[in-house]
Amino acid sequence: MANLKWTKDAETIDGISARLFTVGRDGHTVPGVLWQPAAPAGRQPLILMGHGGSGHKRNARMTMLGKLFAGEYGWNAAAIDGPVHGDRGPVSDAGHPAYREMWQRPDVVEQMSADWRATLDALTGLETVDGKRVGYWGVSMGTMFGLPFVAGEPRVRVAVLGKAGMSGSSVLRSGVDVHFRKHAPQVRMPLLFSMQWDDERFERAGQLALYDALGAADKRLHAYPGQHVDNGPEAFVTQAEFLKRYL
Amino acid sequence: MANLKWTKDAETIDGISARLFTVGRDGHTVPGVLWQPAAPAGRQPLILMGHGGSGHKRNARMTMLGKLFAGEYGWNAAAIDGPVHGDRGPVSDAGHPAYREMWQRPDVVEQMSADWRATLDALTGLETVDGKRVGYWGVSMGTMFGLPFVAGEPRVRVAVLGKAGMSGSSVLRSGVDVHFRKHAPQVRMPLLFSMQWDDERFERAGQLALYDALGAADKRLHAYPGQHVDNGPEAFVTQAEFLKRYL
Repeated sequence: MANLKWTKDAETIDGISARLFTVGRDGHTVPGVLWQPAAPAGRQPLILMGHGGSGHKRNARMTMLGKLFAGEYGWNAAAIDGPVHGDRGPVSDAGHPAYREMWQRPDVVEQMSADWRATLDALTGLETVDGKRVGYWGVSMGTMFGLPFVAGEPRVRVAVLGKAGMSGSSVLRSGVDVHFRKHAPQVRMPLLFSMQWDDERFERAGQLALYDALGAADKRLHAYPGQHVDNGPEAFVTQAEFLKRYL
Repeated sequence: MANLKWTKDAETIDGISARLFTVGRDGHTVPGVLWQPAAPAGRQPLILMGHGGSGHKRNARMTMLGKLFAGEYGWNAAAIDGPVHGDRGPVSDAGHPAYREMWQRPDVVEQMSADWRATLDALTGLETVDGKRVGYWGVSMGTMFGLPFVAGEPRVRVAVLGKAGMSGSSVLRSGVDVHFRKHAPQVRMPLLFSMQWDDERFERAGQLALYDALGAADKRLHAYPGQHVDNGPEAFVTQAEFLKRYL
């Protein structure tokens, strides 16, 4: 808790508050946002949400999910900026050179996992958070960073991953396939892997191979037609219901 | 309606009635069962349910689904015996020679589609059935017969298919791949295709190829670990919620 700072008063819209925070860790700060019901009903689950490449903690997708999880389910939902994203740097499109440079740092995945662990430490200290009911939601870059994180984090009880794979140009450029090969068998919590059947960034066979490699005994693959940015009509609600089943 | 005969008084258990019927068609009769709420709330959707190989219209799976659809959703749910199955003949395990002989009849798929059409004609004449809200549920043999049926039946608005594929020994023995290749592109209604990742009867690649070939713009693949007879923990509820979304 010592490292958690609220940096802005809560904004409350439609009964959901969004609070900006930072978590200090080893001399740097991790900027985050927490959505929760303005009137929380005791300790509730926490969903950690990893945004996609070129996105940030409060982009449209994170905001939509934060409102869904807090508004429809009464949960806490937190997102943090990825390295060189949002308040941490210049990337606002995936073509920015800093995006590629980020992946070339040998410890970028380990550092982001440490950022998530520090965030989880801090947020589970809140009296509205039930530290025994923690889930993770993140696809695309949210899986590239999130999969290694959840593989090593027993406090995360359930996960939604996807839109990423073992092979394909996006994967090879990032070098993240090394982390997938190492960590996928260690992912043991119940999980839902969501993919787009016609994904132009992560090839189909590589996504199926990643699903295959995931070590969880209780897992499911959901595949919808469409490209990387598309989503099945019921995808988010189905994912939320899946999280609810295990939290 | 002229061809529909109730052959047994309704049995009502837990507020759900199960009524046996036959539908006459071209000199033979098709035996079926209809589950519905004992006190139906006006015209409700109808789910046609195709049982698996060696099963029958009232086996444990059909009964479970009939009670789920009628009890939790208030729908009508009907199953009919497949050729040489249930009241139509000797097959009670997939190793019975009559099962293989059935697939060698050149018109077996067309005849079963005609049986389904006659059943649909008859049941949509009931005052408790909304003929504009009809779905199909059938995996394995329920897809081997059901896919060609729904491909040619515009009254079926939504379908759950799966546990079948374009290749593999089960498929080749049945010869049904010819029908899948012909009819899969004609399946246009929203659909959910469910498969088992480690299916020992229908190989993985052939199931993915069948999903790929389905002509529906709005489709989703759900894959769970396990063999042919296994099912994901939330599979049936997720399928029911999918049907509900489109009915």
